[in-house]
Amino acid sequence: MKAAIIGASGYTGAELMRILHGHPEVEVSYASAHKYAGEKVTSLYPHLHGYAGMEFQAFDAEAALARSDIIFAALPHGEAMRVVPSLLEGGARVIDLSADYRLDDVALYRTWYGIEHTSAHLLSEAAYGLPEINGDSISRAGLVAVPGCYPTAAILALAPLAKAGWPGVDGAIIDAKSGVSGAGRSLSLSAHFSQADGSMKPYNVGKHRHTPEMEEVLSKLAGSGVGLTFTPHLAPMSRGILATCYLRTDGTVTAREAGEVFGAFYAGSAFVVPLGSDAFPETKAVCGSNYCHIGWHLDGDRGVMTVVSAIDNLVKGASGQAVQCMNIMQGWREDTGLQALGVFP
Amino acid sequence: MKAAIIGASGYTGAELMRILHGHPEVEVSYASAHKYAGEKVTSLYPHLHGYAGMEFQAFDAEAALARSDIIFAALPHGEAMRVVPSLLEGGARVIDLSADYRLDDVALYRTWYGIEHTSAHLLSEAAYGLPEINGDSISRAGLVAVPGCYPTAAILALAPLAKAGWPGVDGAIIDAKSGVSGAGRSLSLSAHFSQADGSMKPYNVGKHRHTPEMEEVLSKLAGSGVGLTFTPHLAPMSRGILATCYLRTDGTVTAREAGEVFGAFYAGSAFVVPLGSDAFPETKAVCGSNYCHIGWHLDGDRGVMTVVSAIDNLVKGASGQAVQCMNIMQGWREDTGLQALGVFP
Amino acid sequence: MKAAIIGASGYTGAELMRILHGHPEVEVSYASAHKYAGEKVTSLYPHLHGYAGMEFQAFDAEAALARSDIIFAALPHGEAMRVVPSLLEGGARVIDLSADYRLDDVALYRTWYGIEHTSAHLLSEAAYGLPEINGDSISRAGLVAVPGCYPTAAILALAPLAKAGWPGVDGAIIDAKSGVSGAGRSLSLSAHFSQADGSMKPYNVGKHRHTPEMEEVLSKLAGSGVGLTFTPHLAPMSRGILATCYLRTDGTVTAREAGEVFGAFYAGSAFVVPLGSDAFPETKAVCGSNYCHIGWHLDGDRGVMTVVSAIDNLVKGASGQAVQCMNIMQGWREDTGLQALGVFP
Amino acid sequence: MKAAIIGASGYTGAELMRILHGHPEVEVSYASAHKYAGEKVTSLYPHLHGYAGMEFQAFDAEAALARSDIIFAALPHGEAMRVVPSLLEGGARVIDLSADYRLDDVALYRTWYGIEHTSAHLLSEAAYGLPEINGDSISRAGLVAVPGCYPTAAILALAPLAKAGWPGVDGAIIDAKSGVSGAGRSLSLSAHFSQADGSMKPYNVGKHRHTPEMEEVLSKLAGSGVGLTFTPHLAPMSRGILATCYLRTDGTVTAREAGEVFGAFYAGSAFVVPLGSDAFPETKAVCGSNYCHIGWHLDGDRGVMTVVSAIDNLVKGASGQAVQCMNIMQGWREDTGLQALGVFP
Repeated sequence: MKAAIIGASGYTGAELMRILHGHPEVEVSYASAHKYAGEKVTSLYPHLHGYAGMEFQAFDAEAALARSDIIFAALPHGEAMRVVPSLLEGGARVIDLSADYRLDDVALYRTWYGIEHTSAHLLSEAAYGLPEINGDSISRAGLVAVPGCYPTAAILALAPLAKAGWPGVDGAIIDAKSGVSGAGRSLSLSAHFSQADGSMKPYNVGKHRHTPEMEEVLSKLAGSGVGLTFTPHLAPMSRGILATCYLRTDGTVTAREAGEVFGAFYAGSAFVVPLGSDAFPETKAVCGSNYCHIGWHLDGDRGVMTVVSAIDNLVKGASGQAVQCMNIMQGWREDTGLQALGVFP
Repeated sequence: MKAAIIGASGYTGAELMRILHGHPEVEVSYASAHKYAGEKVTSLYPHLHGYAGMEFQAFDAEAALARSDIIFAALPHGEAMRVVPSLLEGGARVIDLSADYRLDDVALYRTWYGIEHTSAHLLSEAAYGLPEINGDSISRAGLVAVPGCYPTAAILALAPLAKAGWPGVDGAIIDAKSGVSGAGRSLSLSAHFSQADGSMKPYNVGKHRHTPEMEEVLSKLAGSGVGLTFTPHLAPMSRGILATCYLRTDGTVTAREAGEVFGAFYAGSAFVVPLGSDAFPETKAVCGSNYCHIGWHLDGDRGVMTVVSAIDNLVKGASGQAVQCMNIMQGWREDTGLQALGVFP
Repeated sequence: MKAAIIGASGYTGAELMRILHGHPEVEVSYASAHKYAGEKVTSLYPHLHGYAGMEFQAFDAEAALARSDIIFAALPHGEAMRVVPSLLEGGARVIDLSADYRLDDVALYRTWYGIEHTSAHLLSEAAYGLPEINGDSISRAGLVAVPGCYPTAAILALAPLAKAGWPGVDGAIIDAKSGVSGAGRSLSLSAHFSQADGSMKPYNVGKHRHTPEMEEVLSKLAGSGVGLTFTPHLAPMSRGILATCYLRTDGTVTAREAGEVFGAFYAGSAFVVPLGSDAFPETKAVCGSNYCHIGWHLDGDRGVMTVVSAIDNLVKGASGQAVQCMNIMQGWREDTGLQALGVFP
Repeated sequence: MKAAIIGASGYTGAELMRILHGHPEVEVSYASAHKYAGEKVTSLYPHLHGYAGMEFQAFDAEAALARSDIIFAALPHGEAMRVVPSLLEGGARVIDLSADYRLDDVALYRTWYGIEHTSAHLLSEAAYGLPEINGDSISRAGLVAVPGCYPTAAILALAPLAKAGWPGVDGAIIDAKSGVSGAGRSLSLSAHFSQADGSMKPYNVGKHRHTPEMEEVLSKLAGSGVGLTFTPHLAPMSRGILATCYLRTDGTVTAREAGEVFGAFYAGSAFVVPLGSDAFPETKAVCGSNYCHIGWHLDGDRGVMTVVSAIDNLVKGASGQAVQCMNIMQGWREDTGLQALGVFP
């Protein structure tokens, strides 16, 4: 099968190419990157020498459609919605890694992204691409909106609890620490090595765009409104997200019950590993892999539950998850081409 | 004036030597380190060539007393209380960087440190060495117990609010990210470069020994019981602590009021810099310095306040703070020998 | 096919398990680790959850022989030679990752490793496990001695030149920069995070044990004695070796000729990628992969050639290379289970 | 005394401000930064809160002259020569951190920097600002051209040998590893965190602009032409340069003689510390300080000498050295305001 990647020169595009190189059923047949049209893939990304002869193309919808069976859009928000509708009209199935089709509510999109949505009719059509909670919809979808790294980490930590009606999901606090690759390949002072190395800092406190996405998804699972406080931090590492979540449970639940909830929810999961009570994840153990590790602690005295999840932001938080969605859409085993273990140490 | 350092071979001991080298009124006249007795200071720490001829000594209380006007104890908890009483009896003023004299309540000490306190009578005598809240006691004290890095970062973030009766201090959540030097010079797998590099992880979730210390101090300031949830994380950097604190304020307070509270509390403070509302610190800006930066955000909709503080764990979180206490004990300007700015980038 | 790993708890052992997890023809059936006998693999290495039920065993030669078709020995030098002979006598084919069977000359072994070799008769039998120069011997061998990370990086950079009689190979200077994982999982001050982070330093200058190994191999290729100056450095990163090699060519050769020599030598190579003249490698592009990137520059004026190679020390410099050797021994495609591209960024 | 800094928003400018904040005789009275005119110093550099009220100015020569007793120019090459002549004409003493006045030979400047020099007459007037070899000229100079980080590290390693007529200085190989802050505050892909973190790579192999500067200075010291091979590398750390230098001595010299040469040359040096034979530096031990550590090894068998030096590129390699020059120009102790020890760990 042939896959096209639109916006292939960014980190999520390159990561799609890396992962698909090892996929037994798919090959990348088309890779567009406006800014680098005509340049060799390996001149930007020497690690991608599996694509030794390939060049980035200027985007052309017809070429992309003609030369592929499925299309990954790895464009920034706002740009994705300019190309996705025509690709769908051209008959393609599209897996979009941007934020453009993640929210149901177009007003929320306008509020948080500050632009008008130009294909709002697709919002209801798009399946939210988090397989652990939405596999059926993904399997039938023509358009999948893959969640970003922060929502993936946070939702995987809280989804079992939300669904179980666990106390404290509404009002939960999510303190997330991200590797700098989450900021992408675009240059910025906060992603400048000398500024970021050896430093921890929060950013976008109280106003990160991923907040409404998490709230919308968890509210659906909970069957009632879930409000969250989400604080992202930049950590001095390339990859990885650690999400530390705090819930006020008021002491009405136990660690054993938590174990049952997580165990049941992720029984048979290909990628989510509940480590157990008082066993905690570290980001490096999932680096380069599609896995998510989760641990938790219940403090009965204070009535606070702490849940911690770790993913690789570029794999389970972006490109690996997109491939997982593709596998489901194709009816393949969910972990086809995604079995690589974390690269540790 | 002459200062002795007991336990000089660890990171806080070496940091004391680094800082005191630039102090105009004090020189290090004695440095003991059991394990390295007879070794040159510079063979362990080449950066300390201001001490080119000096050797570490085996600890000897009489020698320490005879050759110094003030004594810094930079020993692990449990070891400090074996030497501090005899130093005090010998007439010395002692600044202790261990946990042995920080808690008022000897039962809490037994519970959290797992050993019996052998000089509990000194607990009431010891001044808690956080100058921003306890300057008067420090100035009169013969024994000062310098708080550790986590309590310093958390208490500086919350003390103004606790004192002002701010809502949500009781029940606050403290999510702290620490550089690996906080684990000291002793070898361990979690401080092994290949394990820690490129990774974020929580540890001691729900059971870190610094929790009761923070609670005790903030309770006193608040005038009523303060319970906290404290989660330490290891970040892939050598120095720095970032403490992100969450308070449920229930929307009854404003950012402007917060600014007034922080501004009033730290007016005239030599080292604590309130950056303001929606201005946040990064650890690297205080690296190598005795400064503490604090910023905050109030989310009126969700009724949650976020306060973030940053310090260098080895300076304001340990040795710099100890020197600050010494300055106060001596009646010198608080920032004598401590004016160095952060080493950035 | 079943593989046993002796000494599976170290980094090269764990890396063998990671790589073999993705190998289509082999499964790890036995993993011994004296110190961790009875512990779960995943309790030491959470990233290895492909081995969720498995426990480390105390080493037992008969069990290892009975339960495997091929054996990887990932023990320190000196320990390997205590077990390899009995495994060979038991009929196993053995791939040894230690230094014990790399040198031909037992006197060199004694000089550089400071111990007496206890199975010197196997030195001539063992094939040097660098497939790019020794594939035939490996394919027929019962015992393969996989070279370490430094020799692999240096020899791959210089082998084509040595074989071509290029000027300056004898007397070449090799300035190598290694990630800290090269020091293994054993704790040491130089691999302590706070000491290594943010620092570059040389070590074992003029006396690193890998020097005679490089000299022996390159001398054979050159057909005459090759002496080298080798200086290893510790770089603040987990993985990767960059070897910068300097040759005095006296201006008698050109960059075009160099391109021909490298191109011919590595034509058809599965893993070594000559990037070309004035195109240089970076370690991160090969991180987690079995690839080696090589670039060079000829300075005609000064008569100096610079050749730079990059590998992942734990993959092409150890466990990946061991798997490559196994593939050759089995008559499989050399890159079976080893096609993963570098994990970048 | 009042100092002006032209180009104060870059890393060397900010480092001048950091260092001068602790200088007992000087205060920064003027800081220009074209791009950030009107912005607060602390909004770019929160660590500089010693300058809480200060704003960057648009450059104005008259204002700079009127408000200062000495001027530091921290501009890129090419820009410095557009302002330095008018400052000198205005009567100022100028310490220039750019490359514009470092070379004697204007033709070399044109060749390596690719632009025409517009004030070549000042080249002979400018003192080369490396105090360890040029203190007298600096003390009398109106214009001092402070060498960059690579030449400082390399020349300090080789100067004693060059002056002593040591074999192998001509033809020496310098393999240098630099922290990323050497690339400055300007954004670039190679200084982008995700690209640089966890990676070692060479750059500008055979064509770095600092090569002719090193050659010119060492040739003067040697009294005959010195040609060098210089290869810079980017290391994943913010600060520090480690220069590993290789000399072919042909076995005619000994380690003891080397010790005498280094000892004599740096006797009484305030900042250069010869660690001795087989004692090697690490960059972190000099981090944040103006010190340079040097070690060496003689390999009699191979006739190769290895000399390794370490500095902080922003201090001894730029701003600290500039302050050292100022001290000499003013007749103050060379180390005034520069006694801070390295910040380790």
